[in-house]
Amino acid sequence: MFILVNLKTYPCDPIEVAEAARDVNDETDARIAVAPQAADIARVAETGAETWAQHVDPIEYGSNTGHTLAETVADAGAVGTLINHSEHRLKLADIDGSVQAAERADLETVVCANNPAQIGAVTALGPDAVAVEPPELIGTGTPVSQADPEVVEGAVEAAENVDGDVSVLCGAGISTGEDVVAAGELGSEGVLLASGVAKADDPEAALQDLVEPL
Amino acid sequence: MFILVNLKTYPCDPIEVAEAARDVNDETDARIAVAPQAADIARVAETGAETWAQHVDPIEYGSNTGHTLAETVADAGAVGTLINHSEHRLKLADIDGSVQAAERADLETVVCANNPAQIGAVTALGPDAVAVEPPELIGTGTPVSQADPEVVEGAVEAAENVDGDVSVLCGAGISTGEDVVAAGELGSEGVLLASGVAKADDPEAALQDLVEPL
Amino acid sequence: MFILVNLKTYPCDPIEVAEAARDVNDETDARIAVAPQAADIARVAETGAETWAQHVDPIEYGSNTGHTLAETVADAGAVGTLINHSEHRLKLADIDGSVQAAERADLETVVCANNPAQIGAVTALGPDAVAVEPPELIGTGTPVSQADPEVVEGAVEAAENVDGDVSVLCGAGISTGEDVVAAGELGSEGVLLASGVAKADDPEAALQDLVEPL
Amino acid sequence: MFILVNLKTYPCDPIEVAEAARDVNDETDARIAVAPQAADIARVAETGAETWAQHVDPIEYGSNTGHTLAETVADAGAVGTLINHSEHRLKLADIDGSVQAAERADLETVVCANNPAQIGAVTALGPDAVAVEPPELIGTGTPVSQADPEVVEGAVEAAENVDGDVSVLCGAGISTGEDVVAAGELGSEGVLLASGVAKADDPEAALQDLVEPL
Repeated sequence: MFILVNLKTYPCDPIEVAEAARDVNDETDARIAVAPQAADIARVAETGAETWAQHVDPIEYGSNTGHTLAETVADAGAVGTLINHSEHRLKLADIDGSVQAAERADLETVVCANNPAQIGAVTALGPDAVAVEPPELIGTGTPVSQADPEVVEGAVEAAENVDGDVSVLCGAGISTGEDVVAAGELGSEGVLLASGVAKADDPEAALQDLVEPL
Repeated sequence: MFILVNLKTYPCDPIEVAEAARDVNDETDARIAVAPQAADIARVAETGAETWAQHVDPIEYGSNTGHTLAETVADAGAVGTLINHSEHRLKLADIDGSVQAAERADLETVVCANNPAQIGAVTALGPDAVAVEPPELIGTGTPVSQADPEVVEGAVEAAENVDGDVSVLCGAGISTGEDVVAAGELGSEGVLLASGVAKADDPEAALQDLVEPL
Repeated sequence: MFILVNLKTYPCDPIEVAEAARDVNDETDARIAVAPQAADIARVAETGAETWAQHVDPIEYGSNTGHTLAETVADAGAVGTLINHSEHRLKLADIDGSVQAAERADLETVVCANNPAQIGAVTALGPDAVAVEPPELIGTGTPVSQADPEVVEGAVEAAENVDGDVSVLCGAGISTGEDVVAAGELGSEGVLLASGVAKADDPEAALQDLVEPL
Repeated sequence: MFILVNLKTYPCDPIEVAEAARDVNDETDARIAVAPQAADIARVAETGAETWAQHVDPIEYGSNTGHTLAETVADAGAVGTLINHSEHRLKLADIDGSVQAAERADLETVVCANNPAQIGAVTALGPDAVAVEPPELIGTGTPVSQADPEVVEGAVEAAENVDGDVSVLCGAGISTGEDVVAAGELGSEGVLLASGVAKADDPEAALQDLVEPL
């Protein structure tokens, strides 16, 4: 299972979470990565943790101000990027452009979407993976795998129908190892989570709990 | 073939174009519709021409100001709507919401996209039809069926791969009956056009030329 | 006092509200106008009520799809337009463009904003009037003139500091004649309201109550 | 004069430009700062050059993905930020929110706008400075101080009318010391520039030329 910890703009210490991710990644079979803010990517990557961007813009080198260039976050140490997170919804043409920009910079891509129909849609754009996150469950502590298992199954089916090579992750409300196992049983190859680890008093313990049942 | 004439915000007489569309529709086997601005839908529909909206918002009855409610354009006489035209690109989640809003109001839907990958994406949202329009050809007079035939074929293939029940239209640069025939031969079931008819000195003659070879 | 009734996308009968607005306008000293959806402007204007658009886009005649052209809503019978309503926030450059588009089409303009600082900002763009509406009070039934009188006074002062020729309106939560009087005493030359009239069982009675104390 | 060099997403070496800015700043009376991409702020700030962000979002600590938090860029070493650059236009309410976010994080603010009317508008939001940049001149090499001197004078007058404490900068097409002097003579207290320095073969020489006539 792939566990991608989105640090959002939380007031957490990104280095502490990154070191926890690195250590638990090394001690277990799970793959664990962290996605800090753009300005923190370089120092997070220096910890040795697998580092992702939270977003890249559909742009190339040139006259763009205040945007996130895929090449720049890759140079800073990111190896992948979220695209179209529910807190950063993009136009369809821009999701397409961002996936292409990420690929150009050799960033792995996870494109987020709200529901199975939209998962089918983003799968058609050829990312490495897609992630279904029902917006109404984000931050609730109620895991999607329990509150809405048919959303995860529907997403797996929708992606499979369009392109069997694209992995499916799920997110929203995931905070325990049981939730991760349940997500896997529904066909998910990974999970997105955020507050469960980033806001934990002890991020390393939170990650160990998450991967323990795997 | 379905010929959908987008009147955009051109300084044309929408009634003249609508009457031409109605008359040529009645005289031939082609299906012809016009898409005026929202404020013109009621008077265009009164001509008896098949009338479409250019856009509907992903909203329901309620507290929305300056938006286009699907139910209201349907009440005014529209029977279908464009969604995500390249001059009005939407967020993916909003394309999904607009398709659902249109269906709720019994409006037929044509969702536009730039290229085959995006056509696959919007097909997954379950509209009645999709339309591929390479933005760089819009308004050029160079028909997509001639300048970029593999875009049309690629769009047909991408849609078929996702959902064989969704029709494919194409647009951009179409102005002659030959272009329409070529579009059909590439697998397109209709065309979007705009300036070729809406800006013609004689819209009825322009439409007759378009359908003549069919 | 100017009373501008925003019909939003409410499931009300715009004709019934428009006829009420027309009749109460004619019977009293108050100036009353209604702002229906774009697709309803023509039939609302035919009632003889003063008719406003809810929004116009910063565009000219040309290649724009699904947008609201100032000239078209003016031709349909609108004499004014809201711009930048809190349910339709615009980029600053587009507020500027929309005010210019409205002026080109001889539409009177009311530009909305959230707070005194933003009221100062939109006043600098040269509209006919500005309207302060604290978003947190919209639809609450708690009038801004009572919940937040210093917002109205601050808006009047901010506008005056930038351009003394621009009128100030206020909105949010206004539903009684007392609220309208209070707004006037705070320096407001009019009010924006919506649900209080548009959702009333008897819109004419609601309007009569509003203007009675004036 | 304040010379703010926007590195945009140019394929330049931000460290080379930053070191040039630091050295020329130290050797002359001019104040010189550089604005790199968010992911480069920390390493640019480590050079000792005055470092600015290109943009901050109107957000606080919390659930925001792919956004730029003012506190985070400040922690990375930025001391100021551009807001509403013409390549990153914001909604009026978001310019207001971004100025407040920047102030909360002790970042100096320069809010950009297209023309004198919009300069008046953004001045009302209380930033430290505003910058007028006619979009049509950006990247042309034709300096605004020469092509459109009345825009600079109009901006100075518009800002002064609203709040005399807000400084005015200008930008677009500036590449020589003569342009900087001309900008100052029109009432500008600084200049925004980008390609003239960031794309120069020798950024230090380019900066020395710029400040030489001051």
